[in-house]
Amino acid sequence: MAVAGGQSGKLYEQVATRVRGMILGRAFRPGDRLPSVRDLSRQEGVSVTTVIEAYRLLEAQGLIHPRPQSGYFVHAYASSVPAEPTRTEPAAVPSEFRLEELLQEMGKHNADPAVVKLAFATPNPSLLPHAKLARIMTSVVKDHPEASYGYGPSSGHRQLREQIAQRAFGAGAVVSPDEIVITTGCQEALYLALRAACPDGGVVLVESPCHYGVLQAIQLAGLRSMEVCTRPREGICVDAVEEAIQQGLEDGVPVRACLVNPNFHNPLGGLLSDRDKMRLIEVAERYGVTLIEDDVYGDLGHEIERPRVAKSYDEQGNVLLCSSFSKTISPGYRIGWIIAGKRHAQLERLKHALSYGAAGIPQLTLAEFLSTGGYDVYLRRARKAYAQNVARVSTAIARYFPAETKVTRPAGGFVLWVEMAPRIDSVKLYTEAVKHGVLIGPGTLFSGQGNYRNFFRMNAAQWNEETEAAIARLGKLVQGM
Amino acid sequence: MAVAGGQSGKLYEQVATRVRGMILGRAFRPGDRLPSVRDLSRQEGVSVTTVIEAYRLLEAQGLIHPRPQSGYFVHAYASSVPAEPTRTEPAAVPSEFRLEELLQEMGKHNADPAVVKLAFATPNPSLLPHAKLARIMTSVVKDHPEASYGYGPSSGHRQLREQIAQRAFGAGAVVSPDEIVITTGCQEALYLALRAACPDGGVVLVESPCHYGVLQAIQLAGLRSMEVCTRPREGICVDAVEEAIQQGLEDGVPVRACLVNPNFHNPLGGLLSDRDKMRLIEVAERYGVTLIEDDVYGDLGHEIERPRVAKSYDEQGNVLLCSSFSKTISPGYRIGWIIAGKRHAQLERLKHALSYGAAGIPQLTLAEFLSTGGYDVYLRRARKAYAQNVARVSTAIARYFPAETKVTRPAGGFVLWVEMAPRIDSVKLYTEAVKHGVLIGPGTLFSGQGNYRNFFRMNAAQWNEETEAAIARLGKLVQGM
Repeated sequence: MAVAGGQSGKLYEQVATRVRGMILGRAFRPGDRLPSVRDLSRQEGVSVTTVIEAYRLLEAQGLIHPRPQSGYFVHAYASSVPAEPTRTEPAAVPSEFRLEELLQEMGKHNADPAVVKLAFATPNPSLLPHAKLARIMTSVVKDHPEASYGYGPSSGHRQLREQIAQRAFGAGAVVSPDEIVITTGCQEALYLALRAACPDGGVVLVESPCHYGVLQAIQLAGLRSMEVCTRPREGICVDAVEEAIQQGLEDGVPVRACLVNPNFHNPLGGLLSDRDKMRLIEVAERYGVTLIEDDVYGDLGHEIERPRVAKSYDEQGNVLLCSSFSKTISPGYRIGWIIAGKRHAQLERLKHALSYGAAGIPQLTLAEFLSTGGYDVYLRRARKAYAQNVARVSTAIARYFPAETKVTRPAGGFVLWVEMAPRIDSVKLYTEAVKHGVLIGPGTLFSGQGNYRNFFRMNAAQWNEETEAAIARLGKLVQGM
Repeated sequence: MAVAGGQSGKLYEQVATRVRGMILGRAFRPGDRLPSVRDLSRQEGVSVTTVIEAYRLLEAQGLIHPRPQSGYFVHAYASSVPAEPTRTEPAAVPSEFRLEELLQEMGKHNADPAVVKLAFATPNPSLLPHAKLARIMTSVVKDHPEASYGYGPSSGHRQLREQIAQRAFGAGAVVSPDEIVITTGCQEALYLALRAACPDGGVVLVESPCHYGVLQAIQLAGLRSMEVCTRPREGICVDAVEEAIQQGLEDGVPVRACLVNPNFHNPLGGLLSDRDKMRLIEVAERYGVTLIEDDVYGDLGHEIERPRVAKSYDEQGNVLLCSSFSKTISPGYRIGWIIAGKRHAQLERLKHALSYGAAGIPQLTLAEFLSTGGYDVYLRRARKAYAQNVARVSTAIARYFPAETKVTRPAGGFVLWVEMAPRIDSVKLYTEAVKHGVLIGPGTLFSGQGNYRNFFRMNAAQWNEETEAAIARLGKLVQGM
């Protein structure tokens, strides 16, 4: 199994990936003995230490276990690491989204300390660099009273825009700090991007499934979404995007924008290839459709260091890149941004009209944290932990859920998308699960068409006894349905 | 001169107000000797000390000056404390607002450290309780990591909502913390209120003049504003509101909402009487029009402790009360709120769809600051300082501007609305003034109809040599136009 994207993690992680591929592909079956450390070392052309580290990683992920004097064996349930969902085939109809009551109810349950929170995509608190951020914020508060006593620039503090421009360069995009507008999280960025892209209404193409925040923003902007076939690992089908645009022209309901999440899609976890990113940009330009790119998970590749943003291939300024620090550093700071290309001036005006600027002290704290270099060290640790926890949660689903259950194999981020037997209603499961102290995200939230009723999304950022017990309870509920 | 609203400041402030009324009403003329301290003490039935304090206040406001051995005299220019603008008579036509390019340009000038910033309504930084807030935030950062690592409730942290409910009670409104949604400043609150009030478009009545933020929010929500006659001291003409609603019904362009700023209006500084607040609520209910109340200056009465909010008379839940801490504690925290009455559930959903929640640490910092009681002490100091600085700036305008210049007499807040001779174009004045290092807010920003071309708004929160020099430069420019 080749390491995706060619940008690899450490050597032992590459070896672990290949072995995991063999197990998931059933080349090694439950109970099988794996090659000895010495054999694998020879075969892979790596050191014995590297193989030992790879096996330890797979053990931590719950796929294999050592037996004294006998070597490593595939776990009894490991081969049943669930199959993957297949590519989606949504109906090609524009739709409106009516699930906000459900989200509102879920929000109330999420405030209950007794509930195990697997519904919302919150990062793992134990990984976040609290102490360092707290130290930085304490000195920002002291040294920058102007961040409190003034409104600050509506586009955001320049120190932060400089840091974001530098990070965007690492994702292949050459932008100046003057082309960036700071927002209240990525959600506000998406809403503003939609307002700028579609001033006269119209249809927006989205992946299927699609994060409900995207569907909410589309509805709030008075637009309609149309879902496009999406492959769990490889992302949106670019041919289907072009077909939908053509169909819209024929039907007189022109597509105005296409809003995609190419890097580690929420909820699928897939990665659009660089080639497809280029094709998508070409198709959008050819038909005069604006491309909106959501990159909130871009820094959280499990084995891929940092994929390029689609924006990096944008020569016409037709891509609006939206992102935030909510998945990486702090959801509570509510700091996102937008790089709006040729619509920058318009975006600045929209942002000013909507909410002036974003909070000053969180902006300066993030700027300082990014510039003092702790971010990359932290990311390496977080990415590894998310890869492990996602693997552990997948394995637990295989253990506790019915055999027909399918689970995505995300290449980044920390959510899993779970497909159950068609008879299982995830809204009913959600209701039952809440009574058993577990909160999940029903699949219908991820479609404007009411698709994915037998799916749910699960936050796999954390792994501990509580998570495992919650998954066991969920599995039992599904078994009984 | 009676103290407005019957809720007075300290005794010496009441005395000063009466004497100021005599000077402005030309009962005492420039150069006149004022009653001796002993005489006035007898006449007013107050102590000699109180009169001395009153005279010192008037001296600080630039209206009178002492002469050794002779007592207090009216300043030579004091009688020309400018006349007031009269009530406004906007055309009764719905309009759209197109001045965002100008605001964008002003925003850039406002970032220039060399410019004297008199355009935007930023509080006086030297009054703000920085040190205390910094101490509180430092401990919040340490003690509440959950405010960073989670999204927090979409409606905002409960601790802050409790404090806001308590303060609302002080303004006559009985609300529970569960009826409050925290927003990214008042601007976002106004936008959300408009979206909730006018889901199907329509016309929104506003005061004339009207803060441009209101006009921006109306435009962003796809609505049209209609300006209603407003009296500089007494606020919106309620009869004119009813007439506009009736006219809209006749013309088939129904009025959906009325957005008002009853307490210390921006830019006029007037105060709608309690009777008119009640009438406004009655009219709005009778015609099925939603009332949106902007109360950002409500805590900043110069001599009036705390006027009631219109919301306090709302029995049907038809009033959406919007406010923020941006004028009182910190614009940079970007924390506002909305009390949406019967539209609360809808508001929660809109807020979630627009930007999830507001930044957590600023919320908890404000909650702590409000609950530990420093707010009222701070407010007393700030209100007195704003009263003084507004008087000083008015006096300086009288000194440096042509005699025909008129200036409002705000009862609260810290902005002045300046009317120049009809031939003076405030956009031209703004352009010239920027070249001379002074930023003002041209009057056209405060009307969707392009009214008030010969007016401008001036921030009078600060008074120092720089302010006076800037006003002198402005006056010279106007003299030459």
